[in-house]
Parts: sequence; C-alpha cells; structure tokens
Amino acid sequence: MTTTGAGRHSAGPDSGLLSPVWAGTPVEAVTSDPAWLAAMVSFEVALATAQAGLGAVPADTAAAIEAAGASGALDPVELARDAREAANPVVPFVARLTELVADVHPAAARHVHAGCTSQDVFDSAAMLVATRALRLLLVDLDRISAALADVAARHRDTVAAARTLTQHAVPTTFGLRAAGWLTLVGAAHERIALLLARGLPVSMGGAAGTLSGYDEHLRAAGVPGADRALRLVESVARELGLAAPPLPWHHARTPVADLAAALGFVGTALGKFAADVLVLARTEIAEVAEPARPGRGRSSAMPQKRNPVLSTLVATAARQLPVYALVVQQSVMGEDERSAGAWHAEWQPLRECLRLAGGAAHTAAELAEGLRVDGERVRANADLTGSSLVTERLAVALGAALGRRRAKEAVTRAVPAMESGASAREALVAALRESGGADRLPVDVDLLLDPGEYLGAAGLLVDRALDRARGPSPARRAPADGPVGRSHHPSKDQETTT
Amino acid sequence: MTTTGAGRHSAGPDSGLLSPVWAGTPVEAVTSDPAWLAAMVSFEVALATAQAGLGAVPADTAAAIEAAGASGALDPVELARDAREAANPVVPFVARLTELVADVHPAAARHVHAGCTSQDVFDSAAMLVATRALRLLLVDLDRISAALADVAARHRDTVAAARTLTQHAVPTTFGLRAAGWLTLVGAAHERIALLLARGLPVSMGGAAGTLSGYDEHLRAAGVPGADRALRLVESVARELGLAAPPLPWHHARTPVADLAAALGFVGTALGKFAADVLVLARTEIAEVAEPARPGRGRSSAMPQKRNPVLSTLVATAARQLPVYALVVQQSVMGEDERSAGAWHAEWQPLRECLRLAGGAAHTAAELAEGLRVDGERVRANADLTGSSLVTERLAVALGAALGRRRAKEAVTRAVPAMESGASAREALVAALRESGGADRLPVDVDLLLDPGEYLGAAGLLVDRALDRARGPSPARRAPADGPVGRSHHPSKDQETTT
Amino acid sequence: MTTTGAGRHSAGPDSGLLSPVWAGTPVEAVTSDPAWLAAMVSFEVALATAQAGLGAVPADTAAAIEAAGASGALDPVELARDAREAANPVVPFVARLTELVADVHPAAARHVHAGCTSQDVFDSAAMLVATRALRLLLVDLDRISAALADVAARHRDTVAAARTLTQHAVPTTFGLRAAGWLTLVGAAHERIALLLARGLPVSMGGAAGTLSGYDEHLRAAGVPGADRALRLVESVARELGLAAPPLPWHHARTPVADLAAALGFVGTALGKFAADVLVLARTEIAEVAEPARPGRGRSSAMPQKRNPVLSTLVATAARQLPVYALVVQQSVMGEDERSAGAWHAEWQPLRECLRLAGGAAHTAAELAEGLRVDGERVRANADLTGSSLVTERLAVALGAALGRRRAKEAVTRAVPAMESGASAREALVAALRESGGADRLPVDVDLLLDPGEYLGAAGLLVDRALDRARGPSPARRAPADGPVGRSHHPSKDQETTT
Amino acid sequence: MTTTGAGRHSAGPDSGLLSPVWAGTPVEAVTSDPAWLAAMVSFEVALATAQAGLGAVPADTAAAIEAAGASGALDPVELARDAREAANPVVPFVARLTELVADVHPAAARHVHAGCTSQDVFDSAAMLVATRALRLLLVDLDRISAALADVAARHRDTVAAARTLTQHAVPTTFGLRAAGWLTLVGAAHERIALLLARGLPVSMGGAAGTLSGYDEHLRAAGVPGADRALRLVESVARELGLAAPPLPWHHARTPVADLAAALGFVGTALGKFAADVLVLARTEIAEVAEPARPGRGRSSAMPQKRNPVLSTLVATAARQLPVYALVVQQSVMGEDERSAGAWHAEWQPLRECLRLAGGAAHTAAELAEGLRVDGERVRANADLTGSSLVTERLAVALGAALGRRRAKEAVTRAVPAMESGASAREALVAALRESGGADRLPVDVDLLLDPGEYLGAAGLLVDRALDRARGPSPARRAPADGPVGRSHHPSKDQETTT
Repeated sequence: MTTTGAGRHSAGPDSGLLSPVWAGTPVEAVTSDPAWLAAMVSFEVALATAQAGLGAVPADTAAAIEAAGASGALDPVELARDAREAANPVVPFVARLTELVADVHPAAARHVHAGCTSQDVFDSAAMLVATRALRLLLVDLDRISAALADVAARHRDTVAAARTLTQHAVPTTFGLRAAGWLTLVGAAHERIALLLARGLPVSMGGAAGTLSGYDEHLRAAGVPGADRALRLVESVARELGLAAPPLPWHHARTPVADLAAALGFVGTALGKFAADVLVLARTEIAEVAEPARPGRGRSSAMPQKRNPVLSTLVATAARQLPVYALVVQQSVMGEDERSAGAWHAEWQPLRECLRLAGGAAHTAAELAEGLRVDGERVRANADLTGSSLVTERLAVALGAALGRRRAKEAVTRAVPAMESGASAREALVAALRESGGADRLPVDVDLLLDPGEYLGAAGLLVDRALDRARGPSPARRAPADGPVGRSHHPSKDQETTT
Repeated sequence: MTTTGAGRHSAGPDSGLLSPVWAGTPVEAVTSDPAWLAAMVSFEVALATAQAGLGAVPADTAAAIEAAGASGALDPVELARDAREAANPVVPFVARLTELVADVHPAAARHVHAGCTSQDVFDSAAMLVATRALRLLLVDLDRISAALADVAARHRDTVAAARTLTQHAVPTTFGLRAAGWLTLVGAAHERIALLLARGLPVSMGGAAGTLSGYDEHLRAAGVPGADRALRLVESVARELGLAAPPLPWHHARTPVADLAAALGFVGTALGKFAADVLVLARTEIAEVAEPARPGRGRSSAMPQKRNPVLSTLVATAARQLPVYALVVQQSVMGEDERSAGAWHAEWQPLRECLRLAGGAAHTAAELAEGLRVDGERVRANADLTGSSLVTERLAVALGAALGRRRAKEAVTRAVPAMESGASAREALVAALRESGGADRLPVDVDLLLDPGEYLGAAGLLVDRALDRARGPSPARRAPADGPVGRSHHPSKDQETTT
Repeated sequence: MTTTGAGRHSAGPDSGLLSPVWAGTPVEAVTSDPAWLAAMVSFEVALATAQAGLGAVPADTAAAIEAAGASGALDPVELARDAREAANPVVPFVARLTELVADVHPAAARHVHAGCTSQDVFDSAAMLVATRALRLLLVDLDRISAALADVAARHRDTVAAARTLTQHAVPTTFGLRAAGWLTLVGAAHERIALLLARGLPVSMGGAAGTLSGYDEHLRAAGVPGADRALRLVESVARELGLAAPPLPWHHARTPVADLAAALGFVGTALGKFAADVLVLARTEIAEVAEPARPGRGRSSAMPQKRNPVLSTLVATAARQLPVYALVVQQSVMGEDERSAGAWHAEWQPLRECLRLAGGAAHTAAELAEGLRVDGERVRANADLTGSSLVTERLAVALGAALGRRRAKEAVTRAVPAMESGASAREALVAALRESGGADRLPVDVDLLLDPGEYLGAAGLLVDRALDRARGPSPARRAPADGPVGRSHHPSKDQETTT
Repeated sequence: MTTTGAGRHSAGPDSGLLSPVWAGTPVEAVTSDPAWLAAMVSFEVALATAQAGLGAVPADTAAAIEAAGASGALDPVELARDAREAANPVVPFVARLTELVADVHPAAARHVHAGCTSQDVFDSAAMLVATRALRLLLVDLDRISAALADVAARHRDTVAAARTLTQHAVPTTFGLRAAGWLTLVGAAHERIALLLARGLPVSMGGAAGTLSGYDEHLRAAGVPGADRALRLVESVARELGLAAPPLPWHHARTPVADLAAALGFVGTALGKFAADVLVLARTEIAEVAEPARPGRGRSSAMPQKRNPVLSTLVATAARQLPVYALVVQQSVMGEDERSAGAWHAEWQPLRECLRLAGGAAHTAAELAEGLRVDGERVRANADLTGSSLVTERLAVALGAALGRRRAKEAVTRAVPAMESGASAREALVAALRESGGADRLPVDVDLLLDPGEYLGAAGLLVDRALDRARGPSPARRAPADGPVGRSHHPSKDQETTT
C-alpha cells in the first residue's frame, strides 16, 4: 500500500454522483474520508503535544506523528475494510499510524495514542470536521441573509396575493414573504453561530470515561496532581481549538444531538425557502425565476425547459436532513458506558447532515443572490382574483352598518361576480341589495376595494425583520425568534401556576 | 359478542389505554381536548381584553366570552367532527363560541374573534398548553436531577465495571455512571428552562401574517397609530403571559420546531437513563432494582416476576418521542403563507410529544427517587472478571520494562487464567515468563491489580457533575454541556473565522 | 379563567379534536379504547371457548366472561391508569374482568385467562381491531378506485400540460394523470387485501413463546397429545376469525411490521393524490375543485375562501403515517423473548396508523367521488405555453434534416417567441433561418405544433390502467405494479445468479 | 479528463470509512458510483438495441454506445459536479456519452438516448443496481437461514431461561430462540425473493410518462402500430432482464417504495438477531460468543477485550436502515408528473439501504455461521433463579387444591427463598404452611420444579420452524409468516367482506 487515494480507488463507492446538492461544494472536501483521517491525525498530534507539555512524553513525539500522518500512507479504503475487525476505523488507524511513526522515529512510536481510546479519537475528529463544516455553513447562511434582506427591502411594498391552503387569501407584500424566509434563515444562523461560539467539545474519557488511561501514563511519568488528567483534557482542547467539556461525553451525547438538531433545522429552514420558490416559479405563477446561466436547468430532451434546479437541490437536502438527524438523536439512547451500535450508527448520518446542510446552504446562497422577482407578475397575480382578496375587509367595513353576519353573507354573495372580472362596486351593490340591506356603499369604497390599501402592518414588519437581520453581529444578537415585548406584568394565570 | 365500554366513555376514542406512560400523570389533564379548548377560549378572551384596552371593543366583551367558554357547552366530540369541514377545529369553535356569547350577551357576539384567523387561535392555544406542560416537565426534571445527584454522591466511590460494547472494560464508579445520567438530564432541563425563560410566543398574524384584519378593526374603531396592530400583539401576549414575537410565525415555524427538538431531546435523555437501568436490572446483573410497591411490576401469570416497569414505560416514550418530533420538524417546510397540510400535521404529534415527555419525566422521577443500587452486587460484578479489568493499566505499567507491544502481548496471554479465577499474580508471572521477558513483577503489583485503584479522575468528575447540578438556579446557570475550560488561546484557524 | 369542557368529556384526553382527518369517520369507533377493550374480552371468550372444546374448562365459562365483559364495568380511564403498574393494560384488565366474572359466575372466575399472558391478549386484540379497520379501509379504497377510474375514463383524451420540476414539460392527458393515481391506489388496495386474505394472526405463545402455560392447563385437565397446545391455538384462531401462525410471534414481529408498512404505503399513495389535487386546485391553476358543500372549506375570516379541505386532511394524514409506521418497524429490533419497551412502543403508533389510514381513505373517497375536473381550464393551461410544449417533438422532427444538435438549438431559439404568444410557425421559421439551416418547415408542421397530436401512448396507457382496475376481483388479481411482459429470455447475468 | 477513478480522486468523499458494515463487502462494488454509471450505460445500450430491433436506429448504434461506455472516460467526480446544473447526473452523463460515441462512431451519436428522458435512465439504472444487490443479499440471507437452522436443531432441547422485560420468566430452549431468529430471517428472505421473482421494473415513460418521445422516434422511422412504444418498453425490459411495468412509474413510486420497505424489514430482522446476540454475549450472561479470529474484536487499549463486533456492525445498519427507507417512502408523495425534489431525494438513501442491507446480511452470515453457543452456560443461567422459573406452573398445579389465588400467593411467598438457593421443596412447604393451606406437596413436585420439564410445545415449534426453513425453495414456499391453520370456518363478518 502506498498513497492515499491511489489508482485502485476506481471502485470508490461514492463521489457524490447521487448527491449533486453537495458534490463539488466546499463542504465536500472538509468532510471527505481523507479529511476525517487528517482530523484523527490532528487529535493524536494534539494529544502528544499536550502530554509533552506536561512532561509525560518526549517533545518530538508530536512532530513524528504529524510527519507520519502527512506521509500519504494512510489509505482510507484499506482502513475502511480493516475497520470491520473492530467495528471502528480507529483501531486499524492507530496500528497503521504507529507503524508509520516507527518508520520515521522509532522511539516515538511507543508514545502514540498513549492512554487513549478509539472513541476519543473518533469523536474529537468528528468535532474538528464539524467545526470546519459549520464555519463554511455560516458563511453561506450570511450570504443568504444578506441577499434575502435585499429582496425584502426592494419589495417592501410590492403588493402580492398571500396564499393559504393553496388559495389566494388576502393581500400581502413580496417583501413580507421574503422577510419570513429571512427570519427562518436568521434562526438557522443563530443556532449554528451559538454552537461555534460555545465551541464543540473535544472528546476525552479514556477507555470508559474515567480518564484512567491518561492518568496512568501521566502518573507513570511522574506528573503530579490528582487533576493531571483534567489538565491534559484542557490542554488538548486548547491545541485543537475545541472546548473542554466538563465531563467526558462518551455516553452523554448532548453535543452530537445538538449538532444534529441544529443541522436538521438548517435543512428545514432552507427547505421552506425552496418550497416557496418552487411554488412561485411554477409556469402558471411565475412570480420568481432562478438565476439563469447557460446550460443551467436543462432537460435532456425538452429544449424549452428551464427547471428551477437550485431550489430542487435544496429541497432534496431538506427532505433528507431531519430524517438523518433522527438517527443521530436516537443514538443518545445507547446503553452502557459505550453502546454496541448506537455510537457507531451516528457516524455516517452525522456526516451526511454536515454535507447536506453545507451543500444546501451553498446552493441556496446562489439562489438567493440571483433570485429574480418579477414585481409586475406578482401584482398581476394579486389582481387575478380582483377585489375578492379584500373580502375580509369589506365584511368588517360593511358590518358596522349591516351587522357582522349579514355583511359577511353579502360579501360572500358578491364574490363570484368579483372573480369573474365584473366591476367590484357593481357586484357589491347588487349583493347588498339582495341582502335586503343597505344599498349604499361606504364612501371610501374604492379604497376598501384596493388590495394595495389593505396591507396591515406589512411594511413595519419588513422593517423590523431588516433591523434584526442587519443588527448587531449574529453571535451577540438576541435570538431570532425571541420576544421583543416580553411581558413585564405576567398574567395572574402565570403567577399561580409557576 | 356485544360491546364493552361503559356509557360515559363510549364516545372517547382515547383515554390513554395504549399510553400508560402518560395516562393519569399531570400532563394528561393540561393537554386534553378540553384543555385545548379552554386555551382557545383564553386566547379569545385575551384578544377582546386587549382590544378593549385600546378602545376598540366594549369593555364587557371579554367577560362575556369567558362566561360563554365556561358554560360547558363546547363539546370536543362535536367540534372535532365539525372540524372536518374546515380542516381545523377553530372554525366550528368560533361559530359555536359566538352562539354561546350571543346567548349571554347578544351585543358582544359581534366582537368575538375580531380581525382574527384560525391559525392565531390554534397556535396561541398550543403555546399556552405547551407552557403549562413544560412547567410540569421542569418540576419533574428537577426531581430527577436531585435524585440522581444523590445517587452519584452516595456511590461516588463504589467501584463498578464499566461496560463497552456489552463487555467489561475498565473500572469505573457507580457514581460516575449516575453523573452521566445527571449530565444528560441537566442538559434536558436547561433546554426546557430556556424555552420557558424566553417565553413561548403568542401567534398573531391575521389571515396571512400582515395583521391587516386586526388593523382594520382598530382603524374602524378610530384607534390611531400605524403600529396599532403591533401594540395589540404585545398586549395580547401580556394578557396570556406569552412572549410577543418580532414577526408573525404562521409560516416561519421556529417556535414549534424548537419545542419539538427540545422535547425530543428530553425523551432521548431520559431514554438513556432507562436503557441503562434496564441493563443493570437484568436478572444476571442485578446492580439496581426499581422502587418496589405492592402490585408493581406484576406479570399476569408469573408470580416471581418483578418487572422494571418504570424504566420500560420511560423507554416506551423515548422510542416514540424523537420520531413524532420529526413530523413537527418536517412541517417547517410547508409551502405558502399557510400550507395545506404541513401546519395541520403538527398538531397531534406535538401534543403527543408534550404528553410523552411529561409522562416520561414523571415516571423517571419516581424511578430515580426510588432507585435501589445494590453496591455489593455492583462490586461483585466488577470482580467477576477479576484483574482483567485492569489489563489496560498492566500493559502500561509493564511497558516501561518490556516495551509496549510485548507488554500488551504478555497481558493478553494472562487474561484467560485471570478470568478463570486463578491468582492474577501467578497468571501474570507465567505470561511474562512465556513472553521471554522480565520474570519479576513490579513492586506495586497488588495496587496495579486492584480495580479500585484504577479509577482515574472518576471522583473528581463526579464532584464536578454535582457542583454543576447543585449550582446556580437552572435558568441562570451555564449550559449543562458547555465548556468549562474554553480555550483562551484559540488556534489561528479559529481566529481567522470568528 | 375557569374551565371549559363539558362534564361528560372532562376526563377524555383525546376525542379527535386535533385529528379531524379521522374524527367521526368509521375507523374511529372500531379503534377506540372501548373497542380495544371489547377485542380483549373477545380474546378471553375465544380462549375459554376453545379450552372448553378440548374439555379443559367448563362449557359455561365463555358465556360468563362474555357477560362480564358486556356489563359496562370495564372503565378504560381506570384501566389506563392502573396499566402503569404493569406497563401494560392487560394486567389490570384481567384482574378486573376476573372480578366481574366472579360476580356473575363465581366458579368460572378461576378459568379466566388460563395459561395465558398479557401479550397474547393484547396482540390478539390488536389483530382483531386491525382486521376491522382494514375492512373499512378496503371499502373506501374500492370507492376511490371506482371514482378515479371514472375520472380517467372521462378525461382519457383531455389534453393537459404535464408538469415536471414545476414547469410545463410535454402534453399529456388528464386521464393519464388520473390513471397514475388509480395505479397507486390499486397498489395500496392490493397490499391491504393481501393482508386480509392471508388473515392477521392470533397471538398465542404463553409467558415466553413455548405455550407452556396453555399446555400445563390442558395437561392438568387430562387433555392428551403432545400437540394439544398447538390445537388450542388453531381453535382460538378459528373462533376469532384470525389466522393461526406457525410459531408464536411475541418477538418475531413480522405481522405488525407488515401491517405498519402497508398502512404507511396507503398513506403515501393517498398523499400523492392529495398533493396533486392541491397543486391543481391552486388559484392560478384551477384545473380541479373539491366537491362543494355548504360550509365546506370556509375560512373563519375570508368570505371568498373555498379551501381544498379534503385534500388538506388527506395530506395531513400522509405526513404522519409513514413516520408513525417507523416506530412500529423499529420495534422489530426489541431484545429478548419480550422486550422492555419495544413491544409497548408499538401500540399507540399502530393504532394511529390504522386511524390515519382509515380517515384518509374515507376522506379521499369523498374527494375522488366529487372531484370536479374543469376540462376547459385543463386545456387552457396547456395552451398557456403555446407550442413550446412540443419542442421535444420539433427537435426530433427537424433533426432529420438539420442534425440533432442544430435542430435542438433552433427550437430553443424559437421558444421565447412561442411563449410570448407569437405565431409558432413564424417563430420557428425565424429561428431556423438564424440557425443558417433549412428555412422550410416540414409539411406536417401544424400537426407537429399541436399538443393534442403529441400524446404518445397516453390513451393506450389509460385503457390499460382501467382494464387492470376493473379486472378480476382485487384479492385475486395480479399485483398492481407487477410485470405484464416479464422477460422470457432472461439475460445471461440473470441466469447465472438465479 | 481521462480514466474513471483517476489519481485526483484522492479527495473522494466516501470510501466507507464511516460505514464498516458494508466497506469491502460484495455489495460495495455493485452499488458504487462507477457501478451506477455502468448501469446507465447498460440502459442506453439496451434502448438502442431495442430500437434497432424495431428498425428505428442502425444496428451498430448499441455497440458504439457500449464501446464508448467502456472507454473509461466517464468520470464520476466530474459528472457529479456537472449534475448540479440539471439537478441530476443524467443530463451531463448523456452529453458526455454522446461525445464519446461521436469519437468512436460519429454517425451513431445522433441515436443516443433517442426519445428518452433523464428519469428513465436513472430509474432503470437504479433497478439494475438494485437487482444485483438483492441477488447478493439473497445469497447471504440463505447462508444465515442455513446456519440458524443448524443452531436451532443442535439446541432444540437446550434448556434456557426466557427473558421478558429483562427478567427471567419461564423456561424455554435455545433452539426455540434460534427458531425465532430463523423465522424473521425467513420472512426477510421471502420479501426479497418475491421482489426478484416479480422482477424489478424498467423505467420508461419519456419526458412525462406518455412515451411520446419514444413514439415520435419510432413514427419518424416508419415503425407501424399505435402500440409501438409499448413494444419498445417490453423489448428494453427483456434486454435488461427487468420486468416491463404496465404503466410508467415516474410518479407512481410503488417499485421504489416496495424496495425500501423490504430492505428496511431486512434491516430490522437482522437487527433483532444482533440485539439478542449482544444481550447473550454480555460478560455476565455469556451464553454466546461471536466467531473468534485473530485481531477480531480488539480494543485499541484493553488487551482482555473481545468485542462482539459482528453483531455491533449489524446493529449499526439496523439503526439506520428503516430511517433511510422512510425518506424513500415519503418520496411517494411528490407532486406533479415529476416532482422537484422528492424523486431526487430518493437516490442516496435508496443506495444506502441497499448497501446497509447487503453489508448487514454479509456480516450476519459470518456471525450466524460461527456463532458459538455455550450450552452449559445457557443451562447454568436458567438455574440461576432456581425453581422460580417455574412458578407459573406451580401456581397452576397447586391451584387445583388451594384455589387459584391462594396458590399464587403461596408461590409468590416461596420465591425469595427459592432464589436465594434454598431447597425449592422446603421453601414451598414453608410457604404453603404459612398460607394456612395444604402442607403436602403434590406427588410429582420434583417434576414440577424442573425447568427442563416445563417447555410446553418448544420442541414441536422448533421442528415446525425447521420444516419451514428447509421446505420448498424460497421463491415457491408459503409466506414465512402466513397461516398454517387458516380458519376453515370464517366468521360471518369475514365472509361478507371477502
């Protein structure tokens, strides 16, 4: 065996052919098998560095490990197959790494992986990989937020038909629609930023969470202090730029569950954006178009086709992400100090969550930045149903004179005529007459019939969303979905039940 | 065969018969259909109160609605069936409530539900129901934490066999095992406490999120100010003890997704505790027993049986919770200003998540408070495998003299004799001799062979977990899984991206 | 605020208020808690009847049990709460039933539940409940098939725009679209019919699957034959109209997994139909409308709204069903002769699958039977994109003269003009000229430009779907998705591995 | 770009490092990206062959495509990245393949992919890949069945403690336990065999399911007959050894849903076997051991460890499989003639299901074939709880004299003494005396106290399972979970609905 990724990799099972949402995007490289191996090497280097710092291993151990790891001789295919013997790839990895260290620095070989266990290597590597993937993700979520804020600002006052249960409901603005996407993306951003701000934790517990292996090595080397192993943990964390957890988390999988939950949310938040774009891009609706590019969205047969491929790719990820996250979350329930299967079942779905979230965000960034909103078509669609879009308002306005129920009946009666394109005024007059009620329309009826005059607080809400998106830096700003007017005078109900 | 089922229950499709984990526990009452209807009434009352506060409806409207809601005439069975006509129960609820208000105060009827929409009523009611359920949940999570802290403290130094992949691995303490459960439950507590501290948000958007219906009513009543609808939202939130969200969340479902995620995590955290208890209570292991009570854990046929029913019930909930939460999370991806199905699909699984989490926590509290740990059996199990539990240490200790690999081989060779009950010293001497290595054991070999002397930092870790659990009040304390020794010297990589 | 909720419902946690898709539909009654209790009584009656038939218990035992069960004294609320003591409702059920039998026939009480175990009662009752629910389901699936066959036949030749990735693609017919729904519903029907034709199995294993309790009772009563317990199983199955399984299935959960899988498929098959109706009913598309009925589809605020509530309800079920089915499927993996949690976690999601499938089918039957297809609008939508719907064909037709690639380029160039409503002929001529290619259109260009002339085998495929749907009775007919032209000359690859 | 799998693949994202359950097993090669591309080539070859057979393309077209496909110039990494432009890999695949055909046979290039669409190529390739993976799976399921039948036969009469809710319950045999696994594996086998016997279907629909593209090409070539496109479908199916479906299944995803469901079931069936092995291999239970092999089951630190790695690997797959299958099942609900995301989201989870099922079966075959059952330990465990394992029987036997309730009470009273190792006879006598009842034990008390004499029908059930497993060939035999004693006198209720 020689290099990483040699020619015989031609049988390589997966280069992303079935996952175009992440194939070739930045997250691919940082989550690949070689990237995972590199992160495992980084952990072993950091461990030796920290042990050297405490005087427990020779100072040149870490450099020897680093050199061995960089030799290109760690073959993921071979290690993957050998992993079957131990049900995890770390056992063959450590054996091979130790051989390679022995090649470059024989005396150092006995200090590789000292006091350590497979799970520490794997989980720490996973946190390193995840940290890198989350940073890429954050960049793309920032791009999406900026682009959607721009859409919301530009279309703050573009009158649109709000659709509920697939039907035109009342007027809204395209800006408020975009503000909704922005709010969700902001919430996704906040959740990822929080994970990074806290820092993902290094994993160090030794064979079963007592740190005894590490402690024994330090004791044997004469390192004093009952807390020497705890100091080692902090030192390794510092080396890796990870957080030092209060307790080992071999079988208290909060960090992984939180990661999966946050990635799942990213997927569904982007999925909502994609779902709306797909509706709005329908041939019959056509309020938006994806950014054009030669060759983009082609069909293999139909020359006229311009498929909304970016939102399709995002939707693809969104359909998979929360389901894969479920596997990770269910793994919290593993039995014993290390479970037989639950831990192992996390690995691939966790990686796939990182890839899908990263790929979806990268794709959604391109979509958001290039999204073409056809403001005229938006308004034309709103006008399709004529004044029936404001029947809610008409019923209220007429209710003062007619009573609420009769007003609603009259308006309901007027709807078919309104929708068939007749004059809304005439339809209304006729309906009122039939209702045996007032035959005079309110003086401000033209205003009442104009969808653009029935937008409630839409503009203010867009402004609020923009303020929040453009506010203080993400890591410091208040939760995207938190309260703005938190009750200072809690109701009696609340007082009595607390 | 004729029917069973007594008269008064004949209509009820579900009284918890198939869900003993929550049947009869406190969460049942606060999440029942009647409780849901009551919360819907509360919202309509709060809305009228707030509208009256702004001078938009007569001051006695709210009281009339409250009286109508309390009349006992809102029949959940009837409303459930009528809900099919609108795909939601709010439409028939409002119609019926309005009739009832008309009965008690005819003039008030026209002000019921003014400017409102089904989703506002339903989602706000859901947040009220959830708030009550979360408060109950927090109480039980507190009980569990206190009880597990007690177990961890009492068994801080009880030597136990750590088990990894089902096999005895190295020594640990029962206290550290309990500290692991405590950490997970603390993380669950923190997530719920955070939701309550932020406050679940009221839902107010009007027909499609612009607040236009509310605004129109206020305008018609002469209430000034472009932000009058926003003020109404804050006022309703205050009335209900809910938070006022920055934007309507009809189609930005972060609050519901967060709720589901937190409840799913509670389920898996308690599920981990239950999974371990189920292993430890096995006939052959018997390290723990569930709290006894006459009749508890009976079989319908086997007199000797004492089934671990509390942990079984908790496990039952844990298997369902994260999966139901998935339905809720996937609903984030609904299309349009209000989706046709995604919103509606949230309701029942969200309620079931509240029930299962509440029931599981209530059950786990009883389990934790009464858990009987048989310290002698714990130690006896650790002694089952004799000194083979410390082979990791022996290999390190002998490695200094023999070299790492030969030491590991010698120790491996000694294992069968050790496990068959022979003197560990003799087994080791024989193995060393066979290895052609040193035939003298280290001077401290007795210490090296004692599992109780190979506990690493177990005691310190238990202390740390207890400090955290007994620390500042839950709402203010640091995240249960956050860093204690956050890197002060972040790596260069980290600096550039932060 | 005081309580809402009328007296007689105050205890009921769930009357379907949050599940309008099944509230009040036929499946509700057959899956209620009382129905479940009644099925448990039926099992105990059948057991006593079969034991009496073998001479092991007095002949009047069964009648006494039946009378006790019919007394109305089995309170599901009380039993649900007592179920917590045993983690299952059968233990308190048997205790209570035995008391009730003692009241009516003291001597019979000692023969109740003889040799039996909780799981036998529960699982057999579940199979009885499921059998009833599946029969109802089959009736509604038949209704849907008949209605969709009618739609497919009526619109066999109604030209429609096929939509792929949300965009108009090529012409199809509305009949072929309906034939697709019909095919899926047929596949769902077939899966349910197959389960019923095989018969769901009775559950009899005794305490742990050896039938020893039953055998002991028979032995004690002097019933001869080593296979007496097996004969008892067959006899009980016969009494209940269930199948006799070859082996007890306490911990080989194929029957439950199959049931969940079939119900999950029903949900997604109906969900596809609903998803399409929701798209086609959009305001801007309007090819179909749901069956109208006064009050149906109302909004609580907007008079003009006619929401597609039936398809929304179906979609609601479809989003939940396969996820709940997952819980049931994962329960196959329970450990031991009876697991601590996996079995118990099946109950509620299995019931919910039955309800959701039953409710969805009942709702979809009404939808399919009353679906209004607006053939003119269907055709008008197809004409929206003008001749660009046939560009695939044009490229082929022109390819003969121009070469494939230049033909495709020319057609692509003509698309914008075609879609903007210009004469397709002229657009094409101009594009061809620009391509420097032929400037003469094919002689049959009018035919080539007519979407109605480019339907491929659509009509034949509709006929085939109708033949299959109207063919032999469902239980006997070939699988809905099976081959029609199964390869008679298998490839070499196939020969060598079969 | 030159060869498939060139050097620069070193960044290859996935070689199975995180999925040791399938890394290097036979299923890996048949599901790799290159394998998928090869299957896509096979489809295009078959299409050209069938078109040539009908006289629509030159006879040498297929050979040219085959040669181009075999050139090694289809680079999965490049195609994966280009796939982003079309949201599917077929568009760049066809473009590249056409270029390559033009290189070897310019005139043939214009006949590549004639009348076809991306989905036809992809779905047909998926069915080819799946067929190959299922055949491998069947081989391993056969091996597992044979091995488990052998275990069941050898241990037909090995007395064991049945465990329910983790506690010793009643006696069973190890043979019956193995028969349970055998039954589940048989059911899994049957489901896969049925899919293969029916044949997975070729996918041919053209752009939107009407076959119009194919038809147009045939028409243009002068092929007569309205059903020419249908004949083409049958011919392509024959070429590929796939089934010809009655209708195109672009948006009627029964074949994929069935595949996912069957694979999910395989996963959970094998997962049950693994779950039990993991319990039985526990240090304290030790009834079974995994097949030993040098290096197998090593820990990276603990010399004494022999981890049950095969069952851990299988469990790993079982935890993921049904969840990934859920994504596929939910995709049935995609909208339109081809959905924007649902179809695409199937691909990767479907492949992962094939891999996980294949890897799990391959691993489980090695486990089953080498499973070491320690019959003495099995019996010793049964003896751990002494005669309390037969208390169910004692209660029945004593009930004749004492009455059922007093007998159960007496036996319950005797349990603690029995379990503490005292003489069961004496414990029983003392308990009976305390009960104020009979002080004489039944004459056959020794037999009553012997677990080996209380096995019910265990032996007969094992024989039955073996008969079924060794019966007629799998494809022809009756469903593994079907009835043996199907009711001959169905209830009236049943008669009316069948």
